[in-house]
Amino acid sequence: MELDENSLQKFGYIRRETSGSINIDPLQTGGMLTEAARRALVEWGDGYSVCDFCPGTVDIIKKPPINEFVHKALPSFLGIDEVRVTTGAREAKFAIMNSFRNKGDTVLLDGLAHYSSHLAAQRAGLLIEKVPSSASPEYTIDPEDYGHCIEKIIQKTGKPPVLALLTYPDGNYGNIPDASKIASVCHEYDVPLILNGAYSVGRMPVDAGKIGADFIVGSGHKSMASAGPIGILGASEEYADIVFRKSPTHKKKEIEMLGCTARGVSIMTMLASFPAVVKRIREWNREVENARWFSEQLGNMGIRQMGEIPHNHDLMFFEAPILYEISQNAKGGRYFLYKELKARKIHGIKPGLTKNFKLSTYGVGREKLSSVVDAFDEIIKKHD
Amino acid sequence: MELDENSLQKFGYIRRETSGSINIDPLQTGGMLTEAARRALVEWGDGYSVCDFCPGTVDIIKKPPINEFVHKALPSFLGIDEVRVTTGAREAKFAIMNSFRNKGDTVLLDGLAHYSSHLAAQRAGLLIEKVPSSASPEYTIDPEDYGHCIEKIIQKTGKPPVLALLTYPDGNYGNIPDASKIASVCHEYDVPLILNGAYSVGRMPVDAGKIGADFIVGSGHKSMASAGPIGILGASEEYADIVFRKSPTHKKKEIEMLGCTARGVSIMTMLASFPAVVKRIREWNREVENARWFSEQLGNMGIRQMGEIPHNHDLMFFEAPILYEISQNAKGGRYFLYKELKARKIHGIKPGLTKNFKLSTYGVGREKLSSVVDAFDEIIKKHD
Repeated sequence: MELDENSLQKFGYIRRETSGSINIDPLQTGGMLTEAARRALVEWGDGYSVCDFCPGTVDIIKKPPINEFVHKALPSFLGIDEVRVTTGAREAKFAIMNSFRNKGDTVLLDGLAHYSSHLAAQRAGLLIEKVPSSASPEYTIDPEDYGHCIEKIIQKTGKPPVLALLTYPDGNYGNIPDASKIASVCHEYDVPLILNGAYSVGRMPVDAGKIGADFIVGSGHKSMASAGPIGILGASEEYADIVFRKSPTHKKKEIEMLGCTARGVSIMTMLASFPAVVKRIREWNREVENARWFSEQLGNMGIRQMGEIPHNHDLMFFEAPILYEISQNAKGGRYFLYKELKARKIHGIKPGLTKNFKLSTYGVGREKLSSVVDAFDEIIKKHD
Repeated sequence: MELDENSLQKFGYIRRETSGSINIDPLQTGGMLTEAARRALVEWGDGYSVCDFCPGTVDIIKKPPINEFVHKALPSFLGIDEVRVTTGAREAKFAIMNSFRNKGDTVLLDGLAHYSSHLAAQRAGLLIEKVPSSASPEYTIDPEDYGHCIEKIIQKTGKPPVLALLTYPDGNYGNIPDASKIASVCHEYDVPLILNGAYSVGRMPVDAGKIGADFIVGSGHKSMASAGPIGILGASEEYADIVFRKSPTHKKKEIEMLGCTARGVSIMTMLASFPAVVKRIREWNREVENARWFSEQLGNMGIRQMGEIPHNHDLMFFEAPILYEISQNAKGGRYFLYKELKARKIHGIKPGLTKNFKLSTYGVGREKLSSVVDAFDEIIKKHD
């Protein structure tokens, strides 16, 4: 591509096509900025703005008060001893796994783990074993299976996995497994547990200490009303020195953080949204009620929610044979649903999906959720 | 910390203290947003906004046109075959090194390498050898020394380093080494060269192909008028498949990218600023002239620029015995200079430094640089 006037015109400022839509994409609902974060964006937008008063690493910056946020507020928020910000939940998982890497060692993942948990393990050169989930339609994880899998790994390799991970909830069905029980099972074998809270931390109450998780990982852009990419990594005292070990040559810098991580506006939007995030978690029961109500309404139309019922999270997976049938003859084929929803300013179900799809009701509110329900109803009746 | 009304008040929206100042911090001058990027910030601020139309990974998103930006515009811009965005230059360096990790292997760094190059190597478990720079005041790198060091590594370990790295320019003195010659020397031993262009890509013309670099790394927040954290990683065809290798289990996802990297507003600010960045590079000669002029003015006051003279970059290191002397008796001691500059709305020399400091003249313009020169003159005269 020649970089002339003509080709450069394609870049520059670009509008977001979905602005103004009701967005029910699970990736989007928990990451929408608060008004305070939107102001922070503009104030701190310049490249390395937060580093005006750099004392060595981003987490100890006092002006703005990142130090207090990372070392006091976040540990309290997560119920864990030490916290760092990272460039995302996946980067946090990798930092943990890379700290435990040793050729031939294994990490145990739940069968519903996000692809990035697999990639983090592969990047760290760890072998992967999976705790299977139950079959359709529930896809639940039995805590005792963590024990069975650990036993199997010991039989196979002569030693337990170096780490176990639990996705809480998983990103497909939004199931909330019994994390405390799983932590207990793992600890019977001295296996530290990573709780992947990319879809929980910032949405619902999660306390790593009460659960007994050794590590907790969260996503700012997914669930903490922050501009991406940003995540958090919490570690218990027992393991903090391993993951946050310092460079032998650059004594202030932590190796897994490569010195500094979320060194830009992302941390300032997280900090700006934080008071609102703490408060919204207190309203979690209402969010669960909204999700259940929504699931019921769609159920009445023959669109069946998979995963745990009654559901305990805003992320839900649906099977919609009725929409699939319509798509067989509808104008636009399998894209008909996307187009019908788009015409009603509803975004978030992937273009081309009809038979099954996931969505999130988080923070959408009953009024807008009613519009979404009405939209499905209308679309089905229209094509009937 | 209890997360009550009182403690939460510390967070939320916070003002940037240095807003409105002339900022000559080398970390800041190349990362200031363009107007287009500032608009993009607000439009794309929400967490995962760019993923509204996710086709699998962030680099192939068509709406907005990230695919065309990453796979056509950036390779052309950098003169290299394949490019990905990363969460920073350091993360790009680590991705390369991690792809070449093998116990007992070595990476060869220039003696002026940024600390994050050391940390990237340490995180990847590679041994580090350094090409020494010449002594004060020039601190230059002799290309032939890359050959000597490779020979030494072969003698010591039985094999050449798996990678060599050159910081172009270095972040202390702003010296521009003979990168083409260094690439040739490395290639005599079949050692691939990483060009760390965190302070060049986006400021000055750099063409990896012409130089002969096998990898090139850039920083969005340092030098491409982008909101942090974001960087770029370019690789020649020969090595692209190694660094951008895909997961065996998740075929669309690249392991070193953990699937997706700059998955948020940072990529949209880079894209928004890109036309302006391409254009500003054409004005590089003027920037060099401004830097030389500034260096000369400070030289006339007894503040001596270290590194290459005449200088070829906006990043400069100064020794100021005269300011150090003043600090011995001035009110505020070693903080006097910071305070005097702050009173004149000039920011960027670290609080407490007087004897030596670095700064950058990039994009500041002759008028504001004159104000900075006048400020130094006034401060010296005032305390004389």
